[in-house]
Amino acid sequence: MSHVNSQLKRISEELTSIEFLFSSEDTLPYGSDYTEDLFYPPAAVCFPNNSLEVSRILALCNALNVPVYTRGAGTGLSGACLPVQDGLVLSTKKLNRIMEIDTQNLTATIESGVINAHLKMAVEELGLYYPPDPASQGSCSIGGNLAHGAGGPRAVKYGITRDYVLNLEVVLPTGEIIWTGANTLKNSTGFSLTHLMIGSEGMLGVITKAVLKLIPKPTQELLLVASFENLEDCAKAVNAVLLSKFKPCAIELMEKSGVMISMQATQTAFPIHDAAEAYLLFAFDGFDGEDLFLQAEGIYEILESYNALDILPSPNSETAQQWWKVRRAIGETVKQVSPYKEEDTVVPRSAMPQLLKKVKSIGEQYGFQSVCYGHAGDGNLHVNILKNDLSDEVWNHQIPMAIAEIFEFCKSVGGTISGEHGIGLVQKQYLPIVFDPIHFQLLKGIKSTFDPKNILNPGKWLD
Amino acid sequence: MSHVNSQLKRISEELTSIEFLFSSEDTLPYGSDYTEDLFYPPAAVCFPNNSLEVSRILALCNALNVPVYTRGAGTGLSGACLPVQDGLVLSTKKLNRIMEIDTQNLTATIESGVINAHLKMAVEELGLYYPPDPASQGSCSIGGNLAHGAGGPRAVKYGITRDYVLNLEVVLPTGEIIWTGANTLKNSTGFSLTHLMIGSEGMLGVITKAVLKLIPKPTQELLLVASFENLEDCAKAVNAVLLSKFKPCAIELMEKSGVMISMQATQTAFPIHDAAEAYLLFAFDGFDGEDLFLQAEGIYEILESYNALDILPSPNSETAQQWWKVRRAIGETVKQVSPYKEEDTVVPRSAMPQLLKKVKSIGEQYGFQSVCYGHAGDGNLHVNILKNDLSDEVWNHQIPMAIAEIFEFCKSVGGTISGEHGIGLVQKQYLPIVFDPIHFQLLKGIKSTFDPKNILNPGKWLD
Repeated sequence: MSHVNSQLKRISEELTSIEFLFSSEDTLPYGSDYTEDLFYPPAAVCFPNNSLEVSRILALCNALNVPVYTRGAGTGLSGACLPVQDGLVLSTKKLNRIMEIDTQNLTATIESGVINAHLKMAVEELGLYYPPDPASQGSCSIGGNLAHGAGGPRAVKYGITRDYVLNLEVVLPTGEIIWTGANTLKNSTGFSLTHLMIGSEGMLGVITKAVLKLIPKPTQELLLVASFENLEDCAKAVNAVLLSKFKPCAIELMEKSGVMISMQATQTAFPIHDAAEAYLLFAFDGFDGEDLFLQAEGIYEILESYNALDILPSPNSETAQQWWKVRRAIGETVKQVSPYKEEDTVVPRSAMPQLLKKVKSIGEQYGFQSVCYGHAGDGNLHVNILKNDLSDEVWNHQIPMAIAEIFEFCKSVGGTISGEHGIGLVQKQYLPIVFDPIHFQLLKGIKSTFDPKNILNPGKWLD
Repeated sequence: MSHVNSQLKRISEELTSIEFLFSSEDTLPYGSDYTEDLFYPPAAVCFPNNSLEVSRILALCNALNVPVYTRGAGTGLSGACLPVQDGLVLSTKKLNRIMEIDTQNLTATIESGVINAHLKMAVEELGLYYPPDPASQGSCSIGGNLAHGAGGPRAVKYGITRDYVLNLEVVLPTGEIIWTGANTLKNSTGFSLTHLMIGSEGMLGVITKAVLKLIPKPTQELLLVASFENLEDCAKAVNAVLLSKFKPCAIELMEKSGVMISMQATQTAFPIHDAAEAYLLFAFDGFDGEDLFLQAEGIYEILESYNALDILPSPNSETAQQWWKVRRAIGETVKQVSPYKEEDTVVPRSAMPQLLKKVKSIGEQYGFQSVCYGHAGDGNLHVNILKNDLSDEVWNHQIPMAIAEIFEFCKSVGGTISGEHGIGLVQKQYLPIVFDPIHFQLLKGIKSTFDPKNILNPGKWLD
């Protein structure tokens, strides 16, 4: 039994109200997330029931120098929650209470392990809406969304997770519990610890509660699918739409191969056009069905002028759900075809046509197949690189060089290496492309202020 | 000549391209801002022409331990820019270039000394819009807005300054120049230094450039003024409107006395109702005049059910401008009536009626007159406490106790002590109401990471 293991046994014996798992069989599922095919078995997994128990765990681990890896629902795409050093996985699974939905202030106070879709459903029953909608919304936790600064398709109109956070309860490594801000829409009281925690990937503290902003729930939705001969026409049409007075809530770009894989795997229909290499999915939402129809009609002309082959509105909400399903399943289903690396590139929107061209030309040069899709309205393109028949040698040594080239292009046009997935483990090697040493030094200084003994998520991008 | 003074002379002799002021006559205007009647004369004032010159100034001041106080347009309401220790005022006045307005990506790249209204005008010529609109928008600088996390009336629909920042160029005390993020709408690449800089009040670095998000400019605006017998009815009506499907871009609350003072001082008309103690100013904007009219009509019924005495739409844009002028001038004109202290209280919106009641009852208890106004849609109430006939003894010793009581109430309902003005100098004494020692410790740790020698804005709320 390792030193860490015996310390964790002692901790579990002291904290008897908390469930701990130790056997390798039980802890196995906590060694991986949705990122590629990574596996790092934890020494133990624990399931605190409340903030106070999180506090007691952290205080003991900090005193004994035991690494702690906070884990939400394990749907991350950067490996950020994986226990790469011998340590404890702290699961937020039991921190799953929706504590209050305040219908006067349009806020929700929740524990961080609440599943995104559960919160959505609970507030929708009251006519309210929590917009952030990562593709994994059915299973991802709000705490994970917070830790990664997650986005989602509707960011075009509604913004990202960060835009819905008023206040966070955070447990520090010493076990101290703080609230980072206030339950108010505006706050200019000191440096924003709230915004510092968002996107901090479990490295500064454990987020245990959140006060989130809600909005009235739009009652109507209309989708529009447009097909194009090539990706570049698609990306150009997106820019034109965003310069118009029409305001879609989502603009999703999908390469043909992604749509086909997803349709087949999910056995779900989608309006395919034989000559189309790329598709745009537009969503409009609001309170007035006629207005949505007028908006859709308004962009129709724009799309035609950018050579759309076919433009179809969703005839009813069942069809709209099907189209969303095909879009959302691309990431997961492409994974079933072949091992892959998913890159979360983001650039100023107008550089999307160039980025797509660059990805394909780098693909030709290195001989890989890529499936591109993502949030065209935000310049956030997910590039899935498939292993297919590539040798391990090429996969492990050549492809990272290709990825670095893609990221260097992103940086050169004002973009960066992650729009919504975070850095975690797999993007670590590419971080020097966007951060110079002084930037790292500042981030390290912040880290040591919060976690001087480096017990929170060690071995990731700052180490 | 003080030690700091002679060091600044040496620095000015080394940096000959930069304008320096030394005589007390010249530096006088840089000893105060818009906060109460504070005056702290600087040892010298300098006007760098670009980021590189800012870098050279900071590197020298850091080496010689000379305090540096960054100053935008000096319109702050917390005294954050005042040189409370013997030191150099670094004015961003000459960093006033709008470097690029990118009509494809809807972004503007500017230097931090650009005046808010100048940016607005420049982008409006291209059909674009930069929404953040502090009352001082005609004269305040974007750098100051960033340093304070400034808001403004239109935050109800459009959000605050923070929501429009993509990337910042910052000069660190050592003279190193960094960009905090990327020019993208989404970014999950490391802890967000961008959001850490916003609201940092010149204590972590000097913001020299910003990449800001723009939106298409709404072409139509409609205002609605509703008068009420009392402040509480007003505040309740606001909550009801915000729970409806109608979406005003601004909801401003004004107490009768504030309206009267502003009307008189600016010689501008406003629809007064004899029996009204409080007014709400609603603004609607968009692209479709008819839609705005329907929205205004929609809230008409709600306002009536909350006992509105009179509800008037703006008949034309000239009248709308006049109404805005009366609202915007309240802060400045109340100041002319009497010395005052302005508190930037913020609470969850539904607590506004209670907050107003509390302010008035504390006023009765301590014997002060208050003029309340502000951003009702955000729960952000400016409480102006007038000195009038109060003795200096009461003003300096009793009133701060009254203010502490107001802030303690804010804290007790989930609010805090500044919604958009910042802490600076004058709110420093109240900060322990909302921050416990561990919170201060984290903020101090961040400060020493960025500015280990504490040369940036020393003597403010962290010291």
